Amino acid sequence: MTQLIYEQPLNEKTRSFLRLEHLAAHIAQVTETDHLHYCFEPIFALAELTERCDFTSDVLKDIDKQVLMLTKWQAFPHVDTQQVAQLIEQLTQTKTALNTTARLGVKLKQDKFISALKHRFCMPGTCCNFDLPQLHFWLALPWQQRQQDINRWTNEFTPLLSAVKLLLKLARETAEFIHCQAEAGFYQATTDKTLSLIRVKMPQGQSCYPTISGHRNRFAIHFVDFHQQKHTDKQVTFSLATCE
Amino acid sequence: MTQLIYEQPLNEKTRSFLRLEHLAAHIAQVTETDHLHYCFEPIFALAELTERCDFTSDVLKDIDKQVLMLTKWQAFPHVDTQQVAQLIEQLTQTKTALNTTARLGVKLKQDKFISALKHRFCMPGTCCNFDLPQLHFWLALPWQQRQQDINRWTNEFTPLLSAVKLLLKLARETAEFIHCQAEAGFYQATTDKTLSLIRVKMPQGQSCYPTISGHRNRFAIHFVDFHQQKHTDKQVTFSLATCE
Repeated sequence: MTQLIYEQPLNEKTRSFLRLEHLAAHIAQVTETDHLHYCFEPIFALAELTERCDFTSDVLKDIDKQVLMLTKWQAFPHVDTQQVAQLIEQLTQTKTALNTTARLGVKLKQDKFISALKHRFCMPGTCCNFDLPQLHFWLALPWQQRQQDINRWTNEFTPLLSAVKLLLKLARETAEFIHCQAEAGFYQATTDKTLSLIRVKMPQGQSCYPTISGHRNRFAIHFVDFHQQKHTDKQVTFSLATCE
Repeated sequence: MTQLIYEQPLNEKTRSFLRLEHLAAHIAQVTETDHLHYCFEPIFALAELTERCDFTSDVLKDIDKQVLMLTKWQAFPHVDTQQVAQLIEQLTQTKTALNTTARLGVKLKQDKFISALKHRFCMPGTCCNFDLPQLHFWLALPWQQRQQDINRWTNEFTPLLSAVKLLLKLARETAEFIHCQAEAGFYQATTDKTLSLIRVKMPQGQSCYPTISGHRNRFAIHFVDFHQQKHTDKQVTFSLATCE
């Protein structure tokens, strides 16, 4: 049975990080296998998101915080010091890469092909052959060549995306899944610690999905029946992780 | 060597028909193989296009015109009457299917899942797990089941799309490709007949693409170097079809 994990950020920063991670996953998908003109969607979304907001300073602050915490950890007994040292090294490298990055999206903006496409992709159904003959030309190029182009267009974002992925990985590791039950499709809780991320794991076979809301240390989960598209009043069992 | 065909509509109707044909091709793609959440893009574009403008009356008029013309043809000698009869039959069937179709997009609009998604898909990078848990659920369903859903969402558009494809096929068949040369990357012509579509065929190896402009019976073709993204002043050989 497929186990699905649903996540809900409990603050604005984690919300942005999840969006960036999501786009990173899509870019990886369209770089790995040929998704034709669909490859442009995550690239344009990433360009727009990073133009609207500079995430670098948030990421750098978080990296420093993590390095400080991990350094303290190293003094504790029963800690795998080698693993912690490795993590610190990884974070430091990510920080260096981020610090040497120029303003994000500048290179992409200067690409004439991308600029022409970007304008058209905002309007639905307007990437026909006659709207964009250059796209028609590009799509007929060998996949390997297009793959190189996609890599070239996205590599300026790699340091940011790698950092975000690493920070989210560390956030997720702050909590283990525990077994829970929602009576009549509803579950809520408060915690002592400030949370950043709620994770709900459940088998798809239950044919319902969670809609999660919350803030800082309180959260509520409503389970919705997928086929009826309304709140289920059944008892739902699931696994829950509340990450800091 | 890959031969590419570039097309330019010379009137508003053909422009719309090409857009619809283009979306039909994308829908066919995303129905055939799993393109994950990318399947929604052509569906939403089609819904928006057909909501903004009712193409059915244009299509019905064109079908009548074609049937009339083909009926006249049947009287001529050297005409493959069987093939013509087959075409008339196909057009008549398409017309019947179109006439029995309710207002397009109504069924799709009533689908709660689609409505929830449509709202989110307008904003870049906003189809994360936490924005749309129901999408996360849906994407984990077996491909066969999702394929059925895509078919269900799109089948109300099939009569319109089939008709458009057939009409464009007939328009394209009104002209054969002839060999042409563009001196210094430029070619223009006028014709006696009113044209609906210009088609340029050329091998991709020339590393340039045509940008075509025109109206009714005049048109001009500028060839652009793909890598330099500017007009080429080289001599370009290509094949040209001017369709009525």
